[in-house]
Amino acid sequence: MNAPVIILIRPQLGENIGAVARAMSNFGLSSLRIVAPRDGWPNEAAEAMAAHAAPIIHAARIFETLPEALADIQVAYATTARPREVEKPVLAPSEAVAEMGNAKSALLFGPERTGLTNEDLGWCHSIITIPTAENASLNIAQSAVVVLYEWWKLSSRAQSRDLKDPSSTAQDNGATMQDYAHFFDQLEAKLDAGHFFKVPEKKPGMWLNVKNMFLRARHTDQELRTLHGIVRALSEK
Amino acid sequence: MNAPVIILIRPQLGENIGAVARAMSNFGLSSLRIVAPRDGWPNEAAEAMAAHAAPIIHAARIFETLPEALADIQVAYATTARPREVEKPVLAPSEAVAEMGNAKSALLFGPERTGLTNEDLGWCHSIITIPTAENASLNIAQSAVVVLYEWWKLSSRAQSRDLKDPSSTAQDNGATMQDYAHFFDQLEAKLDAGHFFKVPEKKPGMWLNVKNMFLRARHTDQELRTLHGIVRALSEK
Repeated sequence: MNAPVIILIRPQLGENIGAVARAMSNFGLSSLRIVAPRDGWPNEAAEAMAAHAAPIIHAARIFETLPEALADIQVAYATTARPREVEKPVLAPSEAVAEMGNAKSALLFGPERTGLTNEDLGWCHSIITIPTAENASLNIAQSAVVVLYEWWKLSSRAQSRDLKDPSSTAQDNGATMQDYAHFFDQLEAKLDAGHFFKVPEKKPGMWLNVKNMFLRARHTDQELRTLHGIVRALSEK
Repeated sequence: MNAPVIILIRPQLGENIGAVARAMSNFGLSSLRIVAPRDGWPNEAAEAMAAHAAPIIHAARIFETLPEALADIQVAYATTARPREVEKPVLAPSEAVAEMGNAKSALLFGPERTGLTNEDLGWCHSIITIPTAENASLNIAQSAVVVLYEWWKLSSRAQSRDLKDPSSTAQDNGATMQDYAHFFDQLEAKLDAGHFFKVPEKKPGMWLNVKNMFLRARHTDQELRTLHGIVRALSEK
């Protein structure tokens, strides 16, 4: 199994960043990316809380936007307690880790107060929702503990049996998010030029739905090149 | 399924007590007991960290010793990363919650720095060890999140199917820890009187082993009364 990358989106408290790093270390993960940390970077509170996981903090990569952080990722999972009216599969933690397989995957955690925006969710293939009691409120560190623990349970079992998880559905040759980003840039420009979005106020919602539709299909990189070609061919006549 | 009681033994940081309460609330538990909290009680840091779980903090019961906190408990599980040379079953979190069934059970978490003593472990039937990467260091709040999450997964499944978990091995009529404490008090006095412990320095270890041997059998309350009778009968002649 390929270890997922952890991406924290606009995290607010350094303590939570450190606690996530600690959970990562405890469950065998090392690759941390942070998008637009509120208090800048480096962050002393994050290092202090990380304790034995400080090397993960030191090696963390910082990005300005989520698409940049996702560039080389094939499958992205967002952990959120509140699935909006977005057409995405909703998975339990154990289901999500079971389908990661050998794809290059990322686990996304949103900012403490506000959670992930629809724009953030637009970049994700699936939503992970942790089963809880009513009125629960897991902070990002607690959510990370649960999801990474499920990953560790599965991957250590897979290692000890020396076999690929048979239920994995993710593909090794899946298109990366950078491939998708290029495709979406091209598509959006063509759609704008063709006056596809007739009512400007409705464009954001419509465009999210279009992107979701493509992301959901989980194309291989070859398929995405074919889609590029189709868009080009259609728009050139 | 009967919800387990959470027992924190000599916790040091109020923040950790609050974080455990929060995990309890998120995963449907409410009964918190605390043995000899380092910073006394009430504890402002615990309340602040608990947030929506403050009612659990306010309802927490404080005890001076672990046997007092365990008085009405039938089966006790200690969560520790470092099983010592103690003859106890070692379970994964999912295994431990599966055997709780309708017994009155308790989940024990030790102090942050030093962990549980052999004396503490002597009161437990089984040890729960969370699978982790090497050199892991889960704090008590993280450990609680994992174990309580497993409990919630199982109990919400059991509720939705409206059936008792079939793999449960714990008994409703199991002796409580208070029953055991009385029995041990009687037994120890008789053994002392009979010069059973020939070398005083070896008594603590020997006595732990004797207690473990009895606890492991998980007697019913009726069986424990029978044992009482046996000890009395043997020592009276």
